[in-house]
Amino acid sequence: MTVGIVGLGLIGGSIGLALREPGRKIVGYDPNPESVKTARSRFCIDSEASLEEVAQADIVFVAAPPAAVISVLDTIWSSKAPQTVVSDCTSVKANVIAWATKQNDPNFVAGHPMAGHENSGAAFASAWMFRNARWILCPVKGTSKTSITTVESAIKAMGATPVRMKPEDHDRQVATVSHLPHAIAGALVLLRSELGDGDFSGGSWRDLTRVGGVDPNLWTQIFMENRVELSKAIHTLEVQLEGLKASLDNENAAGVHHFLERVKQAKKTDGH
Amino acid sequence: MTVGIVGLGLIGGSIGLALREPGRKIVGYDPNPESVKTARSRFCIDSEASLEEVAQADIVFVAAPPAAVISVLDTIWSSKAPQTVVSDCTSVKANVIAWATKQNDPNFVAGHPMAGHENSGAAFASAWMFRNARWILCPVKGTSKTSITTVESAIKAMGATPVRMKPEDHDRQVATVSHLPHAIAGALVLLRSELGDGDFSGGSWRDLTRVGGVDPNLWTQIFMENRVELSKAIHTLEVQLEGLKASLDNENAAGVHHFLERVKQAKKTDGH
Repeated sequence: MTVGIVGLGLIGGSIGLALREPGRKIVGYDPNPESVKTARSRFCIDSEASLEEVAQADIVFVAAPPAAVISVLDTIWSSKAPQTVVSDCTSVKANVIAWATKQNDPNFVAGHPMAGHENSGAAFASAWMFRNARWILCPVKGTSKTSITTVESAIKAMGATPVRMKPEDHDRQVATVSHLPHAIAGALVLLRSELGDGDFSGGSWRDLTRVGGVDPNLWTQIFMENRVELSKAIHTLEVQLEGLKASLDNENAAGVHHFLERVKQAKKTDGH
Repeated sequence: MTVGIVGLGLIGGSIGLALREPGRKIVGYDPNPESVKTARSRFCIDSEASLEEVAQADIVFVAAPPAAVISVLDTIWSSKAPQTVVSDCTSVKANVIAWATKQNDPNFVAGHPMAGHENSGAAFASAWMFRNARWILCPVKGTSKTSITTVESAIKAMGATPVRMKPEDHDRQVATVSHLPHAIAGALVLLRSELGDGDFSGGSWRDLTRVGGVDPNLWTQIFMENRVELSKAIHTLEVQLEGLKASLDNENAAGVHHFLERVKQAKKTDGH
């Protein structure tokens, strides 16, 4: 079995490492020679190939930046083998789903692995990146069961759990559980930098700001693609915080307690 | 040397474990018999004692809830040995500092260990709780150098780094680096509970919501004591998020990029 990977960054590199096994040949493409070099030196891929060659693999994962994904998919579709199953890893699904709906090809499965970290590039890739992570799949009407099964098998082989979801639900939820946390982490880092000297932050601070400082180019694309849902999520967060702030400003201890008690109850059912 | 601990919860219990050494006798008091039992069974203290007896120790750490601290300090001062040095662990300093300024006793050193986690009680206490943590001290005019040195030695013995700070700076900074993260974590947990089914959150979500669900009684006291600074911190966060939201709403990719680029630069100098 040949696995193709387009985009040899943190996610693409990790897919290569996670699928590495004697029976699989892993070929990769990235327009940046430095990324290819890093991916090869870390054994993320067996060999480099052109995008057209990668498109001949049995399964191709597209882990390109959001702004490049559609043009990559178009190129793959102009040269791919008939049986090649393709899945993308883009963290916002609206654009890719619009493309998939138009294309209506049984062999494309839109996807999004819920994994990553604050560093980028294959230098930080890990075979364990997807262990115990959810990997969302958003099939469209024309997507075949066979290609879904093929992608799900590969996802399971990486240690992740495939979860099917409607694309609009995906984009709305990901705005809250991933993009909003990144926006908050950024805002907190800016607040902290304005506080000046006196560094004594504790564990909660380190946790909340870990993903502050992510790659501005990549995350501008992600935020912009999901701008409607992210804007709504920011607004909803502000409504919650304004409620707490009003209790504080009115010296309303019962109101503060009510907020924290609701959080405690919600957290119990949240499971994280 | 005898160490006294008032309040045998997560922090008090951890102080006991962190200072456990053949040369030190650790005596503890807590009004709740269950807390005493847990602290004893986990070897956080050598023996239980009344508050008046604990007040005879060479050094006493007061790790009582914010609402109880002043009354505990008053009781200790009505019965303490002349040489006993006392330090509190309260996470908001304004009330304690007002008391200390009025008392003007050379043997009291206001403090705050920048450590803890989302669970409470001595059942979760750890000898390693304070390793590599900052431990803020806010001496007042009357505080003697000898008692500061005594407290700093104990703090270093626990593996923490003592840092001196003005109480008003402490309360302002802690509002941003500790209380605000707790407020955000709470707001996020509430948002998530409204999203309904489809649990697929990633690492950034787990990080940001870890401290969501903390003890409502304790944290109501903390939030209320620092309500002015926390309210300001929430407002400042909202200003930052509103700036990002405006860029998203105006489809201003350059604005989003500028936000993320500023975060990246600030994070570099933040050191966390």
